[in-house]
Formats: sequence, structure tokens, C-alpha cells
Amino acid sequence: MDRLALVTEYDGTEFVGFQIQDNGRSVQGVLNEALSKLYKEEIKVTGCSRTDSGVHAKGHVSSADVPFYIPEERIPLALNAFLPGDLSCRRAIRVKEGFNARYDNLGKRYIYRIYSSPVRSPLLSRYSAYTSYRPDIGRMNEAAALFSGEHDFGSFCAAGSSAKTTVRKLDHVLVREREDIRGLLEIEVVGEAFLYNMVRIIAGTLLYVGTGKMSCDEVRISLEEPDRSNAGKTMPPQGLTLEEVFYDWDKWRI
Amino acid sequence: MDRLALVTEYDGTEFVGFQIQDNGRSVQGVLNEALSKLYKEEIKVTGCSRTDSGVHAKGHVSSADVPFYIPEERIPLALNAFLPGDLSCRRAIRVKEGFNARYDNLGKRYIYRIYSSPVRSPLLSRYSAYTSYRPDIGRMNEAAALFSGEHDFGSFCAAGSSAKTTVRKLDHVLVREREDIRGLLEIEVVGEAFLYNMVRIIAGTLLYVGTGKMSCDEVRISLEEPDRSNAGKTMPPQGLTLEEVFYDWDKWRI
Repeated sequence: MDRLALVTEYDGTEFVGFQIQDNGRSVQGVLNEALSKLYKEEIKVTGCSRTDSGVHAKGHVSSADVPFYIPEERIPLALNAFLPGDLSCRRAIRVKEGFNARYDNLGKRYIYRIYSSPVRSPLLSRYSAYTSYRPDIGRMNEAAALFSGEHDFGSFCAAGSSAKTTVRKLDHVLVREREDIRGLLEIEVVGEAFLYNMVRIIAGTLLYVGTGKMSCDEVRISLEEPDRSNAGKTMPPQGLTLEEVFYDWDKWRI
Repeated sequence: MDRLALVTEYDGTEFVGFQIQDNGRSVQGVLNEALSKLYKEEIKVTGCSRTDSGVHAKGHVSSADVPFYIPEERIPLALNAFLPGDLSCRRAIRVKEGFNARYDNLGKRYIYRIYSSPVRSPLLSRYSAYTSYRPDIGRMNEAAALFSGEHDFGSFCAAGSSAKTTVRKLDHVLVREREDIRGLLEIEVVGEAFLYNMVRIIAGTLLYVGTGKMSCDEVRISLEEPDRSNAGKTMPPQGLTLEEVFYDWDKWRI
């Protein structure tokens, strides 16, 4: 018996999200199926986090128990033979028995992409949201700085969340424009743990600040008075990519 | 009566190509339809060039006669209201009566993208070809330099082409790796005019050189002895993007 950490990349467009659901094709379901074919018995993965329908991932991590040894450098290719074009295993890491992709991750890095231009771009629309406004990136970064540290993010959590507490700690939120593609903004959010829709609501709030619909003071209030109506709108899923998930690999790797 | 040059961007995945065909959805057909709705009479565009099914464009140019004046800066937005998500008008330019997008273009810039990595990337696969080999970029550029200037590109032309001559003049062919995405190679090809599948065969030939399947001497021979079997394979359409088309705008613009 081996325990594996599997780093996967996927285009979320045609998935109902990471988690297995009755109503459609999930990343977890497709991954379970491919692993079960490779190892010739039923395998079930545990994901580091759910991602919503339409959200992409460059480095999602799952853990799984598998019945026999395959050298870790060979697993991605072997597994990819059973995976569709929009899901790929980028890396496999043999880990100690106690490892759990969900409970042992130290944090995550997300990027929310917004393309800002008078006219929309078909070549960017699969992986970004679109706005015809030109936001003020300096002001967005002023507001972004307010999110660093520990706060009650209750204003930045979709209704219906079952989280026990809405206090979370973010390392940083940064807004930059791509040098090679004018108008393509990247909002990078790095933190320990996240609430449901938290990054998409932070992105919507920063876009409001950048286009003058919200002030930095109002963002400050949204962090002091947890109420969903104090923050900006929830941005659409296709702009969001889970870029990276952090673990103490020195501790877990075999 | 106004004549317009229309710069369009499209994701070629769901199109049968630029040119109107009986068997499916073409860029030209969808563009004609949207213009006809906007101007309330039948409009037919002339494209700078055909692109094949699956080939993308960032700056394709078409010309069209339209029955009444709309300020050129308003045309993209007005037209985009009638265009689907995978096709967008980025810019409209009012031009003199004699202008023809096909006959008056001075050249084109294409980029062919190849992602080279032990494992494939779902987030790059829509706009690049994939190879598990790591090609030698230095050797590719050595071979790429041979394409500059006027040559008989008969080895780099798909069978069934109706071109009168296979002599064409290229400005340059350059291979580079993206600094922000390790393994993503961009083959830039700039030239006056192109044969059918020419860029895709040049890309395939350079990939053969980069992976040791062809030598620079063999590329030299392919340019001296026009025969399709002397060049490399035709790369798949999704890696190709028509980036830019050149015109003497100072001469044509009103």
C-alpha cells in the first residue's frame, strides 16, 4: 500500500467542479475512475479543496491510497493515459501514511484574471472575466493591502456556507497588469484557508474600488462589519485559477 | 457608402475556418450575418486570408462595404453585440474605396506555439501543440534562419494547393521560449505571403530539427529541392495563431 499526493491541472469549463456530484462530470469523479483503471481496483481521492464549476486549477493536490508501487516519476504519464484532455496529472509524490491533501495543506495561491478593454477578447475569455472599464490599479492595490493578515471575512463569504468561523488569515492580495498583454489584470491572493467564494468576492470588491464604485474606507468597513452586502459582487468562475497549494514536503515526502 | 477594414480576433476551435463553407460555421459567415444585422442589409466581407479549421486569429483583417456612416470607434461595440463569444471585432478603420483586405496586405505575422513537457497541460492545450520531447531551441533557430529571404517553398506546401508559384519571401522565422511559462515555445513567422499549410509545415520541420529527426542540411535541401516529402510533418491547427496583418494604413485610412 502506497499513499500518493497527486498534483493535477485542469480546465474547469466542462466540469461541475472538483467534488463528486450527482448532476455531472466532476474532477474528483474522473480522477477516481482513471486511478481505478490504472491500479485495477477502486481508488478514491481526497482533494485539497473543492473548486466550483468553471474554476480552473494549475496545481490542485489530491491524496490517494494505491495498492501497489509504481515509481513516482512514471505515475503522471501512466495516469494521463486514462485522463481526458482537460485534466492532467502533472506530478506524483509518495508521501507518509498520515498525509491528507485537505488537512495538511499550509495555504493556497489563487489568481483571479480580469481583462479590461473597450472590446472583449475571444482568446482570453476562457480564462478571465471581462470589463469594459479601465480600473485604477493603484487604488486597487491600496484596497488590496487591507486584506493582509487575520480578519473576519464574513462579508466575503457566499450565503449558505457552513463554516464555523469566518475568520481567515491572508498572506497578501496583489494586483498587477500583465506586461505582455495590456489590460489583463491578475489579482493574486495567497492565504492559509478560504471561505466559499472568498477570492471571487475579493476580486469583485477590488474591481469596484478600481472603477470608483467603492472606496477604500468602504472596504475597511466590510472587514470590520461582516455582512455580505458590505462587499462587492461575486465575479464569474472562469477568471479564477487555483495556482498552487503549499505543503511541508520535507516532512511528508518519502 | 463607406468602406471599412475590420480587425477581428477569434478562437478557431469551433469554426470550420475563415472561409464560408457548406459544411459548418465559418468566421466569414458569422461576420457577414452580424454586419447584415447591424446595417440592415446584406453585407459580404473579403478576408485577408483563409485560416483553417481550428486556427486562431488575434488580428485578422476583412474589408466590407457598408451602406451608411457609423463613427469608426463605435463600430466594434455595435458589431460585437451581434457576434458570438468566440469572435470579436477589435477595431474598425474607414478606408479608401480601392482597399481590399486580401490584395492590399503587405504581409502577415504568425505564431506557432508548442508546449514541450513530460506531461501535457490542459490550460495550454487549446492554443498550442504538445510534445513530450524537449527540443534544442538553439538548433531550431539555426534552421529557422535558413528560411529568411526568397525561396521556393514547394516542400512546405500541402498537396492540392492551386498556387501558381511556390516562391515566397519570408522576413524571418524565430524560435523562443516564453519566460513566464517554461516549455512553451513560440515560433514566429513573418512574411509577405504564404502557401497552404506553410507555417504549420515550417513548425513541424523545426520541431524535427529540435528533436534530432532532421539536420540543418536536410532543411537546406528541402529549400533547394521542392518536394513535400523533404520537409517535416504538418503540425495540428490549434497551435497556430494569425497574430497580425500589415497594411500601409497611412495610404488607405480616410
